[in-house]
Amino acid sequence: MALKTVQSKSVRSRIHRLRLSFSALHSDALLVTHPPNIRYLCGFTGSAAILLVEHSRATLFTDSRYTLQARQEVRDATTVIAPHGLLGAIGEALKGCRGNIRLGFAPAQLTVAEKDALQTAVGTRLRWLAAPGLIERLRAVKDAAELALMRRSARLISEVWTAAVRNVKPGISELAVAADIERGMKLQGASGPSFETIVASGARSAWPHARPTPKLLRKNELVVLDQGAILRDYCSDMTRIVFLGRSSSRVRSLYSAVLEAQEAAIAAIRPGVSAASVDAAVRKVFKRLGLERYFTHSTGHGLGLEIHEMPRLGRAEETLLEQGMVVTVEPGVYIERLGGIRIEDEVLVTSRGAEVLTSASREFLEL
Amino acid sequence: MALKTVQSKSVRSRIHRLRLSFSALHSDALLVTHPPNIRYLCGFTGSAAILLVEHSRATLFTDSRYTLQARQEVRDATTVIAPHGLLGAIGEALKGCRGNIRLGFAPAQLTVAEKDALQTAVGTRLRWLAAPGLIERLRAVKDAAELALMRRSARLISEVWTAAVRNVKPGISELAVAADIERGMKLQGASGPSFETIVASGARSAWPHARPTPKLLRKNELVVLDQGAILRDYCSDMTRIVFLGRSSSRVRSLYSAVLEAQEAAIAAIRPGVSAASVDAAVRKVFKRLGLERYFTHSTGHGLGLEIHEMPRLGRAEETLLEQGMVVTVEPGVYIERLGGIRIEDEVLVTSRGAEVLTSASREFLEL
Repeated sequence: MALKTVQSKSVRSRIHRLRLSFSALHSDALLVTHPPNIRYLCGFTGSAAILLVEHSRATLFTDSRYTLQARQEVRDATTVIAPHGLLGAIGEALKGCRGNIRLGFAPAQLTVAEKDALQTAVGTRLRWLAAPGLIERLRAVKDAAELALMRRSARLISEVWTAAVRNVKPGISELAVAADIERGMKLQGASGPSFETIVASGARSAWPHARPTPKLLRKNELVVLDQGAILRDYCSDMTRIVFLGRSSSRVRSLYSAVLEAQEAAIAAIRPGVSAASVDAAVRKVFKRLGLERYFTHSTGHGLGLEIHEMPRLGRAEETLLEQGMVVTVEPGVYIERLGGIRIEDEVLVTSRGAEVLTSASREFLEL
Repeated sequence: MALKTVQSKSVRSRIHRLRLSFSALHSDALLVTHPPNIRYLCGFTGSAAILLVEHSRATLFTDSRYTLQARQEVRDATTVIAPHGLLGAIGEALKGCRGNIRLGFAPAQLTVAEKDALQTAVGTRLRWLAAPGLIERLRAVKDAAELALMRRSARLISEVWTAAVRNVKPGISELAVAADIERGMKLQGASGPSFETIVASGARSAWPHARPTPKLLRKNELVVLDQGAILRDYCSDMTRIVFLGRSSSRVRSLYSAVLEAQEAAIAAIRPGVSAASVDAAVRKVFKRLGLERYFTHSTGHGLGLEIHEMPRLGRAEETLLEQGMVVTVEPGVYIERLGGIRIEDEVLVTSRGAEVLTSASREFLEL
């Protein structure tokens, strides 16, 4: 029950904070169409809904399939069940306003069909104000209720991985390992994986996004395991490498290099530094060790209600980190024939620096 | 290898058939933005791509993350890796045309941001022609390569269910049953479930879309299991009911009624009949048995690259069924306190009638 109270308070402040950010636009209302944004602002998780946030009220429009679900989930907004289409009902609601209606919207999250339908329903009094990324910028900084869920989601995947890795051995297929990991998530209460679990062995481990195959794991192979769960709508994401047998000194030194790069990035994280500077910390380590050309992606990404959110930790990303942001830190090196080594943790930006949320050991496992 | 040849031929004819359907629009080209439509037409499964179909060529625009994947997957289209945004590159390609450029697009699948970016890139010579549903109508009728995959996907989920139901007994949680089913899919080569597996027991079985919970199954409960897999991008979907113990005559008679309604619907399926008439066949049986008010949804839906596609089998759906369509037939009754009973199979419309693709037994299981 305690958690519920926290959530309810924080949800109220989310819509309140959104109003502060869109009042500068001089808009009368904001149309919210992207499902994770709707979930964030009012708690609703159904697939067909639009939220209209006005200065003094917020209204969720959905259809009769979701009557019961809306009653259970929606907070801080009034629900309208629209029998003949959401946009027609929103049009009716907006028509009640006097004079021109200035409506904020995210151009990348509204289809041409939706815009046309609403324009037809309201008429020429409706004026559109492009306001991209307003809610995404709020979502980048997690509030207390969100952090509680992010911590649980990160702990869940850490525990599932730690249990599953005990069964990783030669003779088991990549698919079987992935299936065990996803089963473990579900048993711990996750609704499912936050992306298709990656289990890639041997030379295939050098492909950053390899899908698991029926290939059997063999002795003297690297295995990369990259996985995340969705727990109460919040995503987790972590990667570990194991070696089946006794690894070469080359592999062990690469593992140490990646770990050193990751630790340098984590040490660079604190409020006020740019996302690019965290990425640069990784590149500096790899450059010194002559490994820069094997690092073929960026250092990490924000996550939360979506598996990829703001901020991205990459070159030329000027976003300044803020307390409450959660990002992955996942440097890796990918060497043809030898394989790939990536270590990925979730990191929370705290008032003074960084806190690693992923609890699984980063010790190099030789199984 | 044989399958590959079939696919390649059928993919060619898909773009060809699309051209036939959009030439009537007098458009110069068609912009394809919806990922399942791109997958259908040229085989590409990456998340960031747009396909431009012109009269004499088709071009897939994607970014450098997908260079290798595009090389492996794309058929019957030329790939362009766009370094600075897909829409800018498409704009450059279109500018080569003389005079006005009439571009077909699906308004529900193009964002306002995308439309504006392309308009800016090309200028006033670009004219937009709304052409909704062109590809969806093609996709509703499966070709030989698709049917081979649909059969495999339906067989996979039937086999996974048949194996998993052996472990369904009192004392196991809904979540554990769902986890076992999803693990089974994955072990058989599915990339994952086509929707979150539903396992709902006792009174919860009366909720058509209940998510599995840690609740333990108990003796004398109904359990509804609704599940589907994605196999090589093609979705399956089936529902079965089991009873833990010896059921009452009321439950057995409801099960018989639902089975009778389902069989009536399957018997009504053949080329040339309307989707509504199949739905009506279900309602007629329920009405005769006094159960119509407990049937709270429609009879079924098409499926393929997406879990819900054309045609929908519901009241007032005038679409005429055609040979090669694949639909679910899933009547159900939902009675508060007693529970829900639904039986769902995938059915292929054949030249003479219907073929059930789901191979799991429809016998009422008392476990």
